[in-house]
Order: sequence, then C-alpha cells, then structure tokens
Amino acid sequence: MTIAKRILDGDIRAASRLMRDIDDRIPSAMDSLKELYPKTGRAYIIGITGPPGSGKSTIVDKMVDIFRQEGKSVGIVAVDPTSPFSGGAILGDRVRMQRHATDEGVFIRSLATRGCLGGLTRSTQDIVNVMDAMGKDIILVETVGVGQDEVDIVHTAYTSIVILVPGLGDDIQAIKAGIIEIGDLFVINKCDRDGADKVERDLRGALEMGRKREDGWEPPIFKTEAISGKGIFELVYGILRHKQAMEHDSVLERKRNERAKATFLEVLESEVMAHFIEKIEKEGSWKGMINDLMNRRTDPYSLAEKIIAEELKNH
Amino acid sequence: MTIAKRILDGDIRAASRLMRDIDDRIPSAMDSLKELYPKTGRAYIIGITGPPGSGKSTIVDKMVDIFRQEGKSVGIVAVDPTSPFSGGAILGDRVRMQRHATDEGVFIRSLATRGCLGGLTRSTQDIVNVMDAMGKDIILVETVGVGQDEVDIVHTAYTSIVILVPGLGDDIQAIKAGIIEIGDLFVINKCDRDGADKVERDLRGALEMGRKREDGWEPPIFKTEAISGKGIFELVYGILRHKQAMEHDSVLERKRNERAKATFLEVLESEVMAHFIEKIEKEGSWKGMINDLMNRRTDPYSLAEKIIAEELKNH
Repeated sequence: MTIAKRILDGDIRAASRLMRDIDDRIPSAMDSLKELYPKTGRAYIIGITGPPGSGKSTIVDKMVDIFRQEGKSVGIVAVDPTSPFSGGAILGDRVRMQRHATDEGVFIRSLATRGCLGGLTRSTQDIVNVMDAMGKDIILVETVGVGQDEVDIVHTAYTSIVILVPGLGDDIQAIKAGIIEIGDLFVINKCDRDGADKVERDLRGALEMGRKREDGWEPPIFKTEAISGKGIFELVYGILRHKQAMEHDSVLERKRNERAKATFLEVLESEVMAHFIEKIEKEGSWKGMINDLMNRRTDPYSLAEKIIAEELKNH
Repeated sequence: MTIAKRILDGDIRAASRLMRDIDDRIPSAMDSLKELYPKTGRAYIIGITGPPGSGKSTIVDKMVDIFRQEGKSVGIVAVDPTSPFSGGAILGDRVRMQRHATDEGVFIRSLATRGCLGGLTRSTQDIVNVMDAMGKDIILVETVGVGQDEVDIVHTAYTSIVILVPGLGDDIQAIKAGIIEIGDLFVINKCDRDGADKVERDLRGALEMGRKREDGWEPPIFKTEAISGKGIFELVYGILRHKQAMEHDSVLERKRNERAKATFLEVLESEVMAHFIEKIEKEGSWKGMINDLMNRRTDPYSLAEKIIAEELKNH
C-alpha cells in the first residue's frame, strides 16, 4: 500500500513520515503529494502571525479547544525560521505536542527551513495539502515575525489573523511593518497590560488611513488575554463571520484559486532550481564559477543568462 | 553615456534611477548591473536585524555618524516587507533621508517588495551591488523582523548584528526564533529599561547552550541606548574586531564567496521564473491551469513537472 493510501486510511505515522520526507526533499514525496492532491480542497486554512512573545501559541491552543468542542478536527503547522547554522528544532512545540498528544483530532507539525531556496513556503504548502487530504477540517498555519515569507504564507490562508501586543515600543514601527494590510482579523493580546489602549488606537488609526480593501471587509480588532481564554471565543466567531462574508462575495473562491496558483509556482520554482543546482554540481562547476565571480571575470547576471540559454529550450 | 558610467562618475540621480528600475524589474537594469559588477567587491557589508520598535533605525543613524567622522562613505539599504495590497512606501525612511540629505557621503535606499517570487532578496543584492560600485566604503543592510528572507539577507552580510530589546514578553520566545545563530554581534538596546538584565542573562544562556561556531568567534553583547548614543562607539569597534578576526582566519574570503554564489542563485531563480511566467501568460494558459487544479483534474506537482519537461533541454 502506498504511503498516500495509508494516510487516507487515517495512518498518522504514515503522515508524519511523509512530512519528514517533504522536509528532507526526498523525491518520492512528490509522488505521494500527487496522489493526495485529489483529496484536498475541503479544509479551511487560517493563518496566524505575530511577533515572538505575543502569545501566539497560547491563542492557537485556546482556539483549538473551541474547534475541538465543536467536533472539528484540526491541523497545526508551526512555521519557525530556523538558524542557517544548525537547522535546529523548536522547543515550545514539543511542550504543546504533549498537551494534545492524547487527542487524535489534532495533528501538529512544526516546520523549520533547512535549505536556501524558497524552502519554507514550499514545505508549508505541501504540509497543508497533506493535512487537508488527511481530512482536517481546520488547518492553522502559525508563523513568527513579519518577514516576506511569513507574509506570503499567511496571505495564502483564507483568513489571516495578525496578533499585536502592548509594550513593543514605538507602535508606529510595529504597524508600518507591512502587517496591516494582510490582516483580516486583528488581535491585541495581553490586553490587560499598560499600553493596550494605545496599540488599539494606533491600529485603528492605521486601518482607517490605509487603502480601502477591494473586498469591502472591515477588519475587526479583538482584545484577548489568551492565558485566561478571554476573548478567544469572540475571535473564533470572528473567523466564521469572515468566512461567511467571503463565501457570500465569491472572495473565498478567488482565494482558493490564488492558493492553487501559489502552490504551483512554489513547486515549479523549487523543482526548476533543484534541476539547475544538480546540473552545476554534477558538472563540478561551482568552484570555477565562484572564482570567475570573485575575480570579476564574469558577473552573476551574465552567468545566470548563460546557464538559462544553455538549459531552456525556447529562449 | 550609459547609466552605469554615469553612476561610476558619481551621478547620484543615475544611481537612484537604476535602483528604481531594479525595483520595477526593467530589463535594461540587468545591463547596468553587468556593467557595474567589475567595480564591486570593495564595500564592507553589515547586516542589522531587529524587531519593530527595537530602535534599529536610530542605531543605524548613530553608527553612520561615527563612520562619517572617520571619513567613510556609507550606503544604507532599509528592507521592509511591504503589504501585498498596496506595495506601500515607508514613512520612517523619509524622515531619515532628510537628516542625511545634505551629506553626499550617505546614500539611503528603502526597499519594499512588490512581486511574489524572491523579490526582496534579489533586489537587496542588486542594490547592494550598485552601492558597492558607487564606491561606498560601508553598506548597512537593515531588515525588520526575523523571517526567512530577513535571515538570508542578513546572512549574506559580512558582519550580522541582531538587536534585542527588553519588554518583548517571553524572552525565550524571542530567542528561539532563529536569530541566535545568525548574530555575530548582539545589541540590547533601550538597556535602561526594566528587564534589560534578564534579556542579557537569557541571551548569554542561549549563546552558551548553542552549538559552538565553526569559525570560533564568540559573539559579544553590547548594551546601548541608541537615542543618547550610549554604547554605539563600542558597537562600531566590535564590528571592526569581528572584521579583523575574519580576515585573520580567511573567513571573510569564504563569506565573499558565499555572497557571490547567493547573488548568482537569486538572479538565476528570478530570471528563470520570469521566463516561465512569461511563457504561461503569453500562451494564456493560467485560467485553464487553475481550473484544472481547482477541479482536481491535475495537481500542482504534475503540472510543474510537465512544464519543466516541456521547457528544459536536458531533462
């Protein structure tokens, strides 16, 4: 029986194994992903981003409690940019694993990039597809920070949640960092802290100043204290409202299209680059190329054009 | 006279124009970049990353003051992930522009991605190369957040500075986010605030727990109050020490090699993808492809393989 079939039969260990293979870029993982794809498209994908220390994991945990009470199965992908030196593991994740370890309705996978080329986004898409095929009703994709990859990852979700927290210093700074316009819902967590009102005022100001959204949605702001659970139910209800608004306006269909396109482009990019790198390595030409670059005998632009001309048919 | 020649003659407006063209992916920018590349390789590239509100821009400003007093010319690339909706501009940058507007030795360029595919890293590399060719002695690349792209960008610098700040909440969280191992130097800014000692303790703990660096460098921690300038001179001196240690051990040469390779791969990736996207758009096949994906008649993996087989010669 193929791994994909075992996964569709509910074999959790087969799913974990495939996810590891995806991480390690084992070629056979592509075959499993192809086999699973027809079973995808059912899950509702929610993206959550917030700076380190904003209580993101706690919010996710409490949301999962509510989803589980409603009988929904949940997949969590925790994306954490890792070090280029160690490819290290993620501490907080294991703690959480244990909390949900006895609940078969929750599947958690943490993701840390190893490679260089678009690894994070591609792997995230692949893993979301596996969880989708596994039949998870809801998939939560959690990212740290506000980097471009994180923005991309959250942007391919159907509902994007941005978490802010008082005490980050100059709030204008926090707000300028490109997060305002990716948020469908905003959360001010640790709202009992000093400065919560100011964060809210600044956020409202920024939302009002920003360009009106094409889809007409006005992002609500939720105030939470995740540790006590305060405000989480309202947040989950807010997700439902956003989903319904999008369904009503066919926005959700457009988002599903965009997601399929983004996945395709990610796969194309990583496969093409793998091909080029394999070629360069097989020919043993890295050293000479880098020497030529260092001595300024060539430049990266001409070198790229040369290889493209050599490799592409219709160029 | 070509734009590249005008830039080499010290024409600031030509440099700004080329950087705009790089942002907009105007094809002629490639020719200018090729022409400029032989003049690169002199600048010392410093990467600086820190969360929003950590006082990063102020630290950069004060560092620039010191470099200028030493008679060094400076280029600043401020990388800010921007919104996928607006492609917006950056406020804080204009304020800074004015402060240095009368100083010809300082050139500031802010960078915000527009596109989808590896835009940020590629553009940053290109702009650093332009500034290098312009003859800037020092190039400071400043990024927000700790996303994967930011890590990559900072990692291609010769000296990477990571800024922390008290009051970010759970400090373990801040420290796990992949930043420990990319920092050659650490800064705890706003060190007069409550919690600075705890941040320092946690950071020292994390550094001691972490894997020993291959290059043997032990990252120092600087405590600063950027607004008053406290600790900045020590930081600048720390950069010099790091540079000297790397020169001594040939690490700098290895880093220069890695940088050349990374630039080449970025260029290759964005040019190859531009080729594929152009092909798909010219053939008007997006709509059919997305339909097939949505109806699960195909999957992103098979689709990517099909196009690669069609387009690549030696596949």
